[in-house]
Amino acid sequence: MVQATDLPRNETGIATALGILKQQFGERFHTGQSIREQHGHTTTWIKNQAPDAVVFVRSTQDVADAMKICAAHKVPVIAFGTGTSLEGHVNAPAGGVSIDVSQMDAVLEVNAGDLDCRVQPGVTREALNTHLRDQGLFFPIDPGANASLGGMTATRASGTNAVRYGTMKDNVLAVEVVMADGRVIRTAQRARKSSAGYDLTRLMVGSEGTLGIITEITLKLQGIPEAMSSARCSFPTVEAACETVMSVIQYGLPVARIELLDAMVVKAVNGYSKLALPETPMLLLEFHGSEAGVVEQAEAFSALAEDNGGSDYQATTTMEERNKLWQARHDAYWAMLALRPGCKAVATDVCVPISRLADAVGAANARAAELGLIAPIVGHAGDGNFHASLLLDMEDADEVARAETFVSWLNDLAISMDGTCTGEHGIGQGKRPYLVKELGAAADVMGMIKRALDPDNILNPGKILPA
Amino acid sequence: MVQATDLPRNETGIATALGILKQQFGERFHTGQSIREQHGHTTTWIKNQAPDAVVFVRSTQDVADAMKICAAHKVPVIAFGTGTSLEGHVNAPAGGVSIDVSQMDAVLEVNAGDLDCRVQPGVTREALNTHLRDQGLFFPIDPGANASLGGMTATRASGTNAVRYGTMKDNVLAVEVVMADGRVIRTAQRARKSSAGYDLTRLMVGSEGTLGIITEITLKLQGIPEAMSSARCSFPTVEAACETVMSVIQYGLPVARIELLDAMVVKAVNGYSKLALPETPMLLLEFHGSEAGVVEQAEAFSALAEDNGGSDYQATTTMEERNKLWQARHDAYWAMLALRPGCKAVATDVCVPISRLADAVGAANARAAELGLIAPIVGHAGDGNFHASLLLDMEDADEVARAETFVSWLNDLAISMDGTCTGEHGIGQGKRPYLVKELGAAADVMGMIKRALDPDNILNPGKILPA
Repeated sequence: MVQATDLPRNETGIATALGILKQQFGERFHTGQSIREQHGHTTTWIKNQAPDAVVFVRSTQDVADAMKICAAHKVPVIAFGTGTSLEGHVNAPAGGVSIDVSQMDAVLEVNAGDLDCRVQPGVTREALNTHLRDQGLFFPIDPGANASLGGMTATRASGTNAVRYGTMKDNVLAVEVVMADGRVIRTAQRARKSSAGYDLTRLMVGSEGTLGIITEITLKLQGIPEAMSSARCSFPTVEAACETVMSVIQYGLPVARIELLDAMVVKAVNGYSKLALPETPMLLLEFHGSEAGVVEQAEAFSALAEDNGGSDYQATTTMEERNKLWQARHDAYWAMLALRPGCKAVATDVCVPISRLADAVGAANARAAELGLIAPIVGHAGDGNFHASLLLDMEDADEVARAETFVSWLNDLAISMDGTCTGEHGIGQGKRPYLVKELGAAADVMGMIKRALDPDNILNPGKILPA
Repeated sequence: MVQATDLPRNETGIATALGILKQQFGERFHTGQSIREQHGHTTTWIKNQAPDAVVFVRSTQDVADAMKICAAHKVPVIAFGTGTSLEGHVNAPAGGVSIDVSQMDAVLEVNAGDLDCRVQPGVTREALNTHLRDQGLFFPIDPGANASLGGMTATRASGTNAVRYGTMKDNVLAVEVVMADGRVIRTAQRARKSSAGYDLTRLMVGSEGTLGIITEITLKLQGIPEAMSSARCSFPTVEAACETVMSVIQYGLPVARIELLDAMVVKAVNGYSKLALPETPMLLLEFHGSEAGVVEQAEAFSALAEDNGGSDYQATTTMEERNKLWQARHDAYWAMLALRPGCKAVATDVCVPISRLADAVGAANARAAELGLIAPIVGHAGDGNFHASLLLDMEDADEVARAETFVSWLNDLAISMDGTCTGEHGIGQGKRPYLVKELGAAADVMGMIKRALDPDNILNPGKILPA
């Protein structure tokens, strides 16, 4: 089983810093075991490594103050949003202080005319969208979980509609960051584009708290489309579904979402949500545009699907029916867990060039079967990104060992296909060895940047970079 | 007049490195004055600072070899593509070696199924589009000049259709880079998205040759749209035209291009291209989509334009008429020069939030008049990016001084509006003081990264970072 290695602890520094932080933050400073464990909580199979203390910050100044105290005593600092990351990002392998930004939850500014807004990192994506709705705007990135926007920025999150709207990389205009020495920088102003020096915005997006703590984010917004429609279509094989996705992308159809559910997921969803979908691979789509545009898109899709053996095509524009269809997708995680009561679902997250998606998904299905593992697959197929979720009895050491074999094999497969070991979950602790396999000497360059910006390695140590 | 400062030269190192490079590269090594001056040539008013030698490289290995020689003797290395940059990017203020990549001009791979390709840095955008045409694909970024893709990547270029397709930042999937110590890295594989560590791709895009030399680029491609149409519309004032642009963006109309020409530019174009356009501010548009989609877009635009006092609206879908319309835009540079024979056009490049565009353009028109300067304005209005081109008699010291006052005032204005001093031309030598005004302490962080990756400052010294 993948274990998080404990790193050497700076006991003296930690004791000193905790004393100062306690004085400074009073009742917003916590060392109780349950709150510490909750802040080291991780939704992977990686073991929990709790921080020594948790500080609830309310402002950029709070973060800078806490950072300076920790920097002075060389104590690890780990940013915490909602704790929904999947690769051990919030663990504290060398101890230290968790900086909980959940109370920094203000939407600071909405510039409707410019389609942008400025938020604190603790604002969740659902809270932001609730805030925006009356203005006819929305923020499109939807990783499933109601994550904080700070966390989504830090892990370069994406999700179901990245195929149309991109990932966090494409939707962050600027960030304010507290650096390792406590200085505060803003990476860009609010212009839609700029060639002003190094792209520090993109450097911070996806840096998983290892280069600084994000204290403010300027986000691009979208107008709520005039019309939306949804569709689903069943396919005889995963390959046929993937071929359809490739046609859609090549055709340039501006689908907002195109999700793949393999036969096992459809079966799980039927059971969980009391549906009667054909238990074969399925694509689930959403179209955004004008009234005429979404009809045109749906028609173009159905023709492409038919060419690839698609059947049972159904489209709908009423919100109720759309919600019902997408509920099945949103419930997929719980539905999969229900396939094997008592199991733990371990997520994988590879992404390959679209032309290799059919091969990759087919091979993953076959390899899981060969290893006697239950691994239903859902995919953000338009991006070539898919998740095989291993449903494991964590008490069964042999099964866990086979699961490790599968995860390692799958990451290597994606890398061999010119893809990546992580489409959207990040490296965290779990995927550090694969970063080197995937990018070779580029990982050394990442290390050079890390050492330049955080010479004492206090920012989320033990994450991203290989030991 | 803005002068490029000469930096201290490492005479001994340069002499030694030149000797070794001459041996290694033979007839691909040049020290003739005219070729050196051509490689320090710059299309700004910044003075020419020629390198000591020019090496024509043909492979990544050539670049790595040259880099190692220069690194061993601490000699500056300046990458050169087509020399169309505008802010002194290819100047050699401390002397050194220009690495000319124009012979690295192979399209290495086109993956039509994945809508991507891999090219060497000397491929120009027109050459790439000629190569792609038969496959129904195109590369959308169009900065006007037929620049090399390496140079476009290095300056984070964009141009007329960034409003729809983004900038180089959004269209580069990965780069291969020779670092300051001669090591070769590849920043990403070919997956459409990835969360694998720091975004070195985006760090290299826009780094202007100061962090490494780009030797290969993996680019996203687009399918040639089923239909394209163009339109133009005249407005009583620049403000009315800008208000229309803001409506278009807020409405979410997916225009492929929306260009602003102020009254002086329209007049220039009429004279140069023998047209009879109304000599008031004009918007020029292009729509990409399905046959029905482009009609719908054009209709939606014309309604928005009418609301803002637009008149003389004309739309066309025939290629001949489209080309004629856009030819006027493409000729704008030459047309402006013809307004004042013998003058030099000095480009500015600010970008502001769209909501401030009308104010910014109006203020720029007024300020130029106040200073007695001729400064026609064209703008990539959908991004809030515009260029006032100062038509100067470079022999008139007083006029040049007033132009400097204008440029400085304009950069400050954009920064005060939460915008940037450079939307797409880059910082180079000319805008280094404004980088600090715009981004403050973030510029220091850029310096930390620069020193970590290029400790001897051999990569394009004197660019981007303040002295």
